[in-house]
Amino acid sequence: MRPLPGDLVASVLTPALVIDLDAMERNLSRLAEFARLKGLRLRPHAKMHKSGHIAKLQMAAGAVGVCVQKLSEAEALAAADVSDIYISNEIVDPAKLARVAALAGKVTLAIAVDSALGVSRLASAVKASGNALDVFVEIDVGQGRCGVKPIDAAALAQQVAAQGLRFAGLQAYHGRAQHLRTAAEREAAIGQTVAGVRVALAGLADLGIACPLVTGAGTGSFVFEAASGVYGELQAGSYLFMDADYGSNEPTPGAPVFEHALFIKSQVVSRDEAHAVVDAGHKSHAIDSGLPRVWQRGLAFANGGDEHGILHAARDALPELGDTVWLVPGHCDPTVNLHDHYVAVRGGLSEGVVEAVWPVDARGCLV
Amino acid sequence: MRPLPGDLVASVLTPALVIDLDAMERNLSRLAEFARLKGLRLRPHAKMHKSGHIAKLQMAAGAVGVCVQKLSEAEALAAADVSDIYISNEIVDPAKLARVAALAGKVTLAIAVDSALGVSRLASAVKASGNALDVFVEIDVGQGRCGVKPIDAAALAQQVAAQGLRFAGLQAYHGRAQHLRTAAEREAAIGQTVAGVRVALAGLADLGIACPLVTGAGTGSFVFEAASGVYGELQAGSYLFMDADYGSNEPTPGAPVFEHALFIKSQVVSRDEAHAVVDAGHKSHAIDSGLPRVWQRGLAFANGGDEHGILHAARDALPELGDTVWLVPGHCDPTVNLHDHYVAVRGGLSEGVVEAVWPVDARGCLV
Repeated sequence: MRPLPGDLVASVLTPALVIDLDAMERNLSRLAEFARLKGLRLRPHAKMHKSGHIAKLQMAAGAVGVCVQKLSEAEALAAADVSDIYISNEIVDPAKLARVAALAGKVTLAIAVDSALGVSRLASAVKASGNALDVFVEIDVGQGRCGVKPIDAAALAQQVAAQGLRFAGLQAYHGRAQHLRTAAEREAAIGQTVAGVRVALAGLADLGIACPLVTGAGTGSFVFEAASGVYGELQAGSYLFMDADYGSNEPTPGAPVFEHALFIKSQVVSRDEAHAVVDAGHKSHAIDSGLPRVWQRGLAFANGGDEHGILHAARDALPELGDTVWLVPGHCDPTVNLHDHYVAVRGGLSEGVVEAVWPVDARGCLV
Repeated sequence: MRPLPGDLVASVLTPALVIDLDAMERNLSRLAEFARLKGLRLRPHAKMHKSGHIAKLQMAAGAVGVCVQKLSEAEALAAADVSDIYISNEIVDPAKLARVAALAGKVTLAIAVDSALGVSRLASAVKASGNALDVFVEIDVGQGRCGVKPIDAAALAQQVAAQGLRFAGLQAYHGRAQHLRTAAEREAAIGQTVAGVRVALAGLADLGIACPLVTGAGTGSFVFEAASGVYGELQAGSYLFMDADYGSNEPTPGAPVFEHALFIKSQVVSRDEAHAVVDAGHKSHAIDSGLPRVWQRGLAFANGGDEHGILHAARDALPELGDTVWLVPGHCDPTVNLHDHYVAVRGGLSEGVVEAVWPVDARGCLV
């Protein structure tokens, strides 16, 4: 039932998750080039695309590896031959940590910590396995979620080392800052983030602990982290596909231009004189960061529930029954998680041809 | 990595989709008994649970079959030996309709229509297959989504018959009415719905077309459709698991009591003095109908993104690092769609034992 290479895009059954390969490849090159020019490591967040194939494309373009948020995502990408993976998140369950330690015997692995309990349980698992991994201390730089206070980072780094683990540096990511609409707001937020990093670095210096790397940054803010002088690695993920939410940001001066490269192909299945209904609802596209936008048509999209989207005419007239309508998802990461495969298209959405079908390897990897 | 029957619930890795079997079975019996007492057919909506096993439990308790919204859901449930399936939604793609017609050779199948184009394409596919199915004309009874106007139902039913298809009755479901908070509001909305059904029935009578069945109703309103005298079949689905959204409805007088039976098991992975972070975000539970509620603890849940939930103390103190926290999802249907399997637990959430692991057969069935 999946499309085959060579199929016309027109024949792909709806709803489908479609990549415009030409646009994706331009995005891929532009961030890789930016990182190269700035002399920074690039470790894109693969929680966005969840694909081993795409992770390897990023590494072939210069990325040192990828980030993920979950143990099972790391396992899925390792099974797809991704060789360098950083779990930029906390795990405290001993059964999961045993799997983390086992995975460190197969790939170059790193993980984040933010508690003494997490460090000691990780150390036990790693010791029992005989493997080794890198450990980043996460600091809360404004997100208000995980991470220790910057002033407490050095003490936790000391425990990492005391437990026989390898302290690899600081995890410092400010997620909410990515979606502030003006560049000035994002710059101000990352100014606070960098101030937090400096506090943590000063604490480490006071204890004589070297900090090999500060890692973080996202698609909305990486220009500012890159200019900070303290970050050594960028974790942007959404740049590759973009989404309606990121598309609403005012561009950042000095940032590469990224294009929408991820779409939902949908079809009009019901229509009257006032509205049309497409066969894509929030089972096909995540709506946590807003509804999808209709691509290159002046139509308003309203939520029609799990399986439907409702279109109203705006600048353009309503599409006809059976017509194809392309949607730009509000948020790419959880949208991708709803699909088993990508349909990768060459030559544009309307007239293009299916070049490949890639599995979403880490789809549904929750643990 | 999946749990095994006999495992303690405490050992189930988080996040996990857990059914409290005792509560689910009480819900199952209560609606079956209600329908039996009212002399109505029950055809629960399996788009909610997406499970062949659960569909067969419902049929064993008296349901005549199940509804789904998508062709591929119907195919997945048919592959899981569900013998009677109604696609209560419109399909207009000829390639999909060929699959619908083929499926009608394997199971007792029905589908909804709301356009002349849909009817003629369906008729072509069915003729080509040599199979037969039931066709319901959908009327818009207040949802503002799919369906013809009630006054136009008879003309479309006439086309169904003229094309050699079997007109089986009216599809009349008012989704939004389910979530009106007071019973009086829901009763008023279903009053309008029933008025629409009567208009359609009068139109059919005028043309001398018999209407074998009116089918519809959901968990929030079925008492009113049951009392209307025009509905012959109830499609409620969420009654089996309930969710935080339905839990916010004022109870309907005369309705059975349904209990929360579906939960997300989560774990605290980060904590400071002000908040705790669990490992379940909107990749584990859908938030289209609101955030999850913390089960039996006085804690406030805030959205922490795709992979995290943020807890603040309310009546109760914050949980400790590593603690288990149970969540009631805001909306069961799309939450189930995020998981590959159910962990079905006997004996309660805290002290219970895994009785079975059931696949979510129609997970990700978008087409």
